[in-house]
Amino acid sequence: MKSTLRIVLVGTQHPGNIGSAARAMKTMGLYELHLVRPHKFPHPEATALAAGATDLLDSAVLHESLADAVADCHFVVGTSSRRREVPLPEYLPRQAAEQLLQAGMSGNAALVFGCERTGLENEDLQRCHATVCIPANPEYASLNLAAAVQVLAYEFRMAMLASGTRQETVSISLADPDEAPASHEDMERFFGHLTELMEHVDFHKGRAPEIVTSRLRRLYLRAQMDKREIKILRGLFSDTQRMLRISQKQQTEK
Amino acid sequence: MKSTLRIVLVGTQHPGNIGSAARAMKTMGLYELHLVRPHKFPHPEATALAAGATDLLDSAVLHESLADAVADCHFVVGTSSRRREVPLPEYLPRQAAEQLLQAGMSGNAALVFGCERTGLENEDLQRCHATVCIPANPEYASLNLAAAVQVLAYEFRMAMLASGTRQETVSISLADPDEAPASHEDMERFFGHLTELMEHVDFHKGRAPEIVTSRLRRLYLRAQMDKREIKILRGLFSDTQRMLRISQKQQTEK
Repeated sequence: MKSTLRIVLVGTQHPGNIGSAARAMKTMGLYELHLVRPHKFPHPEATALAAGATDLLDSAVLHESLADAVADCHFVVGTSSRRREVPLPEYLPRQAAEQLLQAGMSGNAALVFGCERTGLENEDLQRCHATVCIPANPEYASLNLAAAVQVLAYEFRMAMLASGTRQETVSISLADPDEAPASHEDMERFFGHLTELMEHVDFHKGRAPEIVTSRLRRLYLRAQMDKREIKILRGLFSDTQRMLRISQKQQTEK
Repeated sequence: MKSTLRIVLVGTQHPGNIGSAARAMKTMGLYELHLVRPHKFPHPEATALAAGATDLLDSAVLHESLADAVADCHFVVGTSSRRREVPLPEYLPRQAAEQLLQAGMSGNAALVFGCERTGLENEDLQRCHATVCIPANPEYASLNLAAAVQVLAYEFRMAMLASGTRQETVSISLADPDEAPASHEDMERFFGHLTELMEHVDFHKGRAPEIVTSRLRRLYLRAQMDKREIKILRGLFSDTQRMLRISQKQQTEK
């Protein structure tokens, strides 16, 4: 049984870690590996450490950006080794696995790992609906990349095996189950439209827009919107803009 | 918090694996490493791969036999990659972790790993009270030694965190923990404001507003908004209304 969980490794520095991660994935039944700007790939060290999982390296998909790697995903979880200022929902591995499993039933779900030294950048976390943190020893929390992949892939496999035997999976779906979930692209177009509207009504008044923008991104991402909700809100934005344009046009015509 | 679980590695062939296993242990808060007839130890490769966990290598206890390594233990679980003829209870990792935690409260408990190529010998399994098997992908079940240690140590840590120290477990907070959550009143005022704006821009165009309104309520309620987010969005509504009023006023004045 092949699951639909996509593993995305962003900016991996050591090719050996890509190989070890592929091995960890395959032992847990995961096959979809996506790589964003790996420093060296393909590479003999990756191949060596993948052992019997070189098929995952052969089929790995390369991307220029995380946005590209998750464009068709509607649920994206970023791994984080510590609490961040970005207050996304923060799950334990077991909870994250259940959420990812559930999300994977109605579309593509992705689990994203940052580079070895610094983890995911805040910019990358902005593309995530939630984060997951392995509750490591506070005195020494240094799991290597493949170890983190192993633990999370293991939890995903356990969730998958449990759902197969249980059948009555816990329904944690936040959005309307009858509506198609919004894709990453839908969300980006929505944010683009919102930004446009904010400029139109001079919301920022000279202040830097970043803080407000990131707060609103967070709000709408964690809500896991469906396509219908996006349509309603974008309809509201369009009506507002149309109304403003009519008024402004009449104004210039006077 | 140091736990009482002892990790015993029997006949490890590659010293690097001892180092990686030590690292995996320490990330999960385990410190007691026992080695039975390692092929090469101490060794620079073990030290290199232990990263910040070399203290575990320094304090590792060497033994001539498994019998010696578990002499003072009253509960011993052997890891196994497959079902054996040995008629022992076979646990999943989560169950094994709970059993080991329980046993560790009244004495010494040990988790034993065999050598890389063949795993534990039947003779070693005879010294175990139970076995544990990680339910790996049947098409590729090749977890390396450190990966197996990582998964089992992780489950032990989860069991430990779940048992005594509940306050240490991470709660799932949806909204920013530093911001006060929106009250029921805040939400109702927010919905009132949103409704007003929708009427202002003639969003409904004669259709009954109930369906759209209830969809938007659901969206914003499930997001569990905080007061700051409400403030931002209501600010946006006000700016929009102000802009519309200015335009419309100028229009009537013309």
